[in-house]
Amino acid sequence: MHTEPFNELLARNRDYAKGHPGGDIPPVPALKTAVVTCMDCRIDAYSALGLRAGEAHVIRNAGGRARDALRSLVVSQRQLGTRQIVLITHTTCGMSSFRGGDLRGELGPAADGIDFDTFDTPEQAAADDADWLAAHPLVLPETTIGAFVFDVQTGELRHVKTVARPSAGR
Amino acid sequence: MHTEPFNELLARNRDYAKGHPGGDIPPVPALKTAVVTCMDCRIDAYSALGLRAGEAHVIRNAGGRARDALRSLVVSQRQLGTRQIVLITHTTCGMSSFRGGDLRGELGPAADGIDFDTFDTPEQAAADDADWLAAHPLVLPETTIGAFVFDVQTGELRHVKTVARPSAGR
Repeated sequence: MHTEPFNELLARNRDYAKGHPGGDIPPVPALKTAVVTCMDCRIDAYSALGLRAGEAHVIRNAGGRARDALRSLVVSQRQLGTRQIVLITHTTCGMSSFRGGDLRGELGPAADGIDFDTFDTPEQAAADDADWLAAHPLVLPETTIGAFVFDVQTGELRHVKTVARPSAGR
Repeated sequence: MHTEPFNELLARNRDYAKGHPGGDIPPVPALKTAVVTCMDCRIDAYSALGLRAGEAHVIRNAGGRARDALRSLVVSQRQLGTRQIVLITHTTCGMSSFRGGDLRGELGPAADGIDFDTFDTPEQAAADDADWLAAHPLVLPETTIGAFVFDVQTGELRHVKTVARPSAGR
């Protein structure tokens, strides 16, 4: 099997590449920022934050959860110098519509190791994750963490909380 | 501490929201597709694939690796009906510039559980991940998986491999 199932996306990519500026953009995010948000199909993360190529890492997973992003955040901070984390959950997220334990039960033993990290409200999820990261030993000192909720109907970000990780030795 | 560190991104978001179409876009991806790609700051995933709101899940992590995306892919397939997976690694990825074991060594015990899943070439990483997903018990039968490499200099996607997960019972 070849490209047939993907021909539509490949055609769209060819259109995109025609307008691609080319050249060498540095891989180090200019805003020293890593964004963590949900995989939701209604969120165009780059556009919603007005990001330009080269400015920020964008990490996305089901719910936009921090635990699932930890591996990526460590690489982002240690290898590529980011010091600001922007956590963005969103309204009407599917991760509030089921229980992780129920899904694990349906899936059986193959899913035993998976914490689906579902939540009740996007505000609480983002706030909890900001606190969790601020206390995590792998997050660098002097990291600033912002928790936000994205409204999928209006496209607006709502600020929930800002937490600064204490400096080392304090 | 309040919004000050994030004021630039919030201002850009307000500009974005002014042009947001509003209304209720269904959360179920219309293309039944989940894209997995790298968090790299040079990749505007939505634009590169010509995605429109409501069409596809976008999962992003360091390297665009499948293992780290498994939790999200399970939710994408089981809760939101996707049946096609598009894996996209890219040229000059930072995940080829260090060894996971070395980073774990620097970080100490707090990083013991983390597989950084670094790789030598983006082609091999995407191909290996396509095979890994096709054989994984949590990936649904009838899933089509495409492996691609994104060229960050030209903006072009290059097809590496397509794998179909066998139907159940075959």
